[in-house]
Amino acid sequence: MTKRSRRLFLSIGINSTGYLGTSWKARKGNRLDFVDYDYYLGLTRKAHAARFDAVFFSDHPALMLDTEVRPLHSFEPLTLLTALAAQVPDVGLWFTGTTSYNSPYNLARRLQTLDHISGGRIIFNAVSSFNPAVAANYGNDPLPPREARYRKADEFMQLLDELWGSWDLKREGAVPEGRLWDNSSAHAVNHQGEFFNVAGPLNVPRGPQGRPVIAQAGASGDGIEFAARHGELIYCSLLSKQAAFEFGGKLRQRAAELGRPANAIKMFPALVPIAARTEAEARERLYAVTGAGTEEGLIAKFAQEHGLDGPNFDPDAPLDESHFAATPGQQRPVGFTQSIFEVIRLEKVSTRQLVNRLEGGHRLVVGTPDKIADTIIDWWESGAADGFNIQAAALPDELDSFAELVVPILQDRGVFPRDYDGSTLRERFDLPFPS
Amino acid sequence: MTKRSRRLFLSIGINSTGYLGTSWKARKGNRLDFVDYDYYLGLTRKAHAARFDAVFFSDHPALMLDTEVRPLHSFEPLTLLTALAAQVPDVGLWFTGTTSYNSPYNLARRLQTLDHISGGRIIFNAVSSFNPAVAANYGNDPLPPREARYRKADEFMQLLDELWGSWDLKREGAVPEGRLWDNSSAHAVNHQGEFFNVAGPLNVPRGPQGRPVIAQAGASGDGIEFAARHGELIYCSLLSKQAAFEFGGKLRQRAAELGRPANAIKMFPALVPIAARTEAEARERLYAVTGAGTEEGLIAKFAQEHGLDGPNFDPDAPLDESHFAATPGQQRPVGFTQSIFEVIRLEKVSTRQLVNRLEGGHRLVVGTPDKIADTIIDWWESGAADGFNIQAAALPDELDSFAELVVPILQDRGVFPRDYDGSTLRERFDLPFPS
Repeated sequence: MTKRSRRLFLSIGINSTGYLGTSWKARKGNRLDFVDYDYYLGLTRKAHAARFDAVFFSDHPALMLDTEVRPLHSFEPLTLLTALAAQVPDVGLWFTGTTSYNSPYNLARRLQTLDHISGGRIIFNAVSSFNPAVAANYGNDPLPPREARYRKADEFMQLLDELWGSWDLKREGAVPEGRLWDNSSAHAVNHQGEFFNVAGPLNVPRGPQGRPVIAQAGASGDGIEFAARHGELIYCSLLSKQAAFEFGGKLRQRAAELGRPANAIKMFPALVPIAARTEAEARERLYAVTGAGTEEGLIAKFAQEHGLDGPNFDPDAPLDESHFAATPGQQRPVGFTQSIFEVIRLEKVSTRQLVNRLEGGHRLVVGTPDKIADTIIDWWESGAADGFNIQAAALPDELDSFAELVVPILQDRGVFPRDYDGSTLRERFDLPFPS
Repeated sequence: MTKRSRRLFLSIGINSTGYLGTSWKARKGNRLDFVDYDYYLGLTRKAHAARFDAVFFSDHPALMLDTEVRPLHSFEPLTLLTALAAQVPDVGLWFTGTTSYNSPYNLARRLQTLDHISGGRIIFNAVSSFNPAVAANYGNDPLPPREARYRKADEFMQLLDELWGSWDLKREGAVPEGRLWDNSSAHAVNHQGEFFNVAGPLNVPRGPQGRPVIAQAGASGDGIEFAARHGELIYCSLLSKQAAFEFGGKLRQRAAELGRPANAIKMFPALVPIAARTEAEARERLYAVTGAGTEEGLIAKFAQEHGLDGPNFDPDAPLDESHFAATPGQQRPVGFTQSIFEVIRLEKVSTRQLVNRLEGGHRLVVGTPDKIADTIIDWWESGAADGFNIQAAALPDELDSFAELVVPILQDRGVFPRDYDGSTLRERFDLPFPS
């Protein structure tokens, strides 16, 4: 591929047996391979062969006990990504960690260490924990309200930035006789905040990409403000291209007001692709991997989940967006509610239409490889997205089908590279280097 | 090597430019390789080739700013060991982490994840932080007194054990139709303690060796009680064989009183070997790597460090042990003080004798490969030690000389294996599997 000023980015989520809860029932893997390191190594090697820019691990530090669905989170993702970094080159390592229940010094140190080990391939997806089952693994305090969680997350990220920059051996001056290094390259941070007090400096010097790339996924008002301040890769649920423009525009405008450069933010909505050689095959696969069996099954599931299944329910009537309006006090993530609200508001979709473009809270695209490639290129070319975080419905199945059927089309059309570019992830994503 | 009921164990510390502060001045490496992952990978591969049972990383989460000596701790050791686990087989991974400033759920999860990734090769050296510079990276609270730190460490280890055993997929029963796994294999821990409240279960199932091997290094009264309750590998400073018998005996007796089996504790004193083909060469190397230049230089350094350098100081007079008695309130580790006290008490050594068997707080042996092998075998055969944690004065130099000159003798004499044995570290060390 010739050098382009802008090119499509693709990452892929490889948690557990796949993104869908029912994925374990309809896949090639072995039953318990979600707790087998070699399984993740194999998936990451496949992702590397397909030239994915990064492998993504969401996280949730509590065991999901509902055995009808797969436990989405088990191995601690930073540990897993560190081992993968040592065995698979090039691919980015997208780590999800909580700002609510980590020590800033410890996490700053682990991430900066891994940035060295990996040669600058770390992405830190900073999340504010919203689940009481998680909170209960970290003390008896109840989950704080969203606003306080984001205030803590904001201070956490500021502090990480201070720590990551507190020892810069590349800016070392002349080393005096009889000394190993120039310790004017290190300085205390002496952070005194509402939530954290940390002296510093960090005992790991700045890594190859200056600091890890920061990803962010919250879509509440507090989440958007946090993304505008700290986010570089924005992982989000967007079901409508128009909604993607509006959300991206709002975020970039706020980031610009905060003084951040124009290239500071890359939009990475999720995409759940179900690709097959024919439309009919793809639809069969959708019904199998969701466990819904048919389109009517999908409709019934959606109606039940959202309290629409009354006697007058008409799957072909336009939905009422007000039914999906986010409420300020809601516990579940605002992003999933908001994306449904927006696609109804902007496109007046029916339930039947919606279940064909939504699965697991994210945008679903089902069909032939060309159809999937077309929609990816359409969003990317128009600027609605800079890249996509592919959520494979089941693993390895939807990683395999996407890699085999869709990636070659994107490469043939010249929007996605055949080889890795950029010596660090920050370079690859054209993100500003910290000053 | 034929199968033995008991064999010598050897681990090696590979922090920074070497165990001695001045090591950076007298070694083969590059100046800043202590923050270069490839350097540690190279050292670990050498350790593997020499059949060391484990590589050991001490830790201290704060930057040492005295540039006349190397910063002993930089890369976060669990991250570093995870990458090494993925690239180097067989060798054990001896991690040092603080029980004072870690979240039990997070650390339990990271360690159990790495136990899976490594195939059961993790050792957790649980330390209670004693340094105010460390405390200042984790809040404004002053360092608690030793007794409170050990009370917290004790609860921390109990909780880790509860969490590590809270999900045991190997004990899964029949999996019901339509379910992925049998969730009766997981149970909440509902730990409510003085320092921690954790619901559980851990979302990582038990690993290959049941639980990580626990190492311990404290030698104060509180430290010994902690070791007797939780320790499996006891890392310690012992300068006299008689002191080793007494210390090991006391510890094993207390462990037996607590109901632990006879094979539960393995003594791993440190050893700082300086091996060369001739005694004279070895002595030259000692004077170079310590920066002392001569034996008189070593004596002067010791006298100054311990406040003995008055007008009447006689380096050949027997030392007075009472000068080295540990005091209950002292901040620095009791073990280093105690080991000097004991060798004087038991062997009436002079300063000149002592500086030839002590460096960096640990037992020094300088001389020909046969002399070093002889003392190792003597301690091991007599039961004063089960193994040694080799502290290389400088790296890679003293790793190289020990591996090339001493290890082959230990192998030829049949006390140390030529190949790795045991499928997990717990098996290799003949330690009990958790019930």
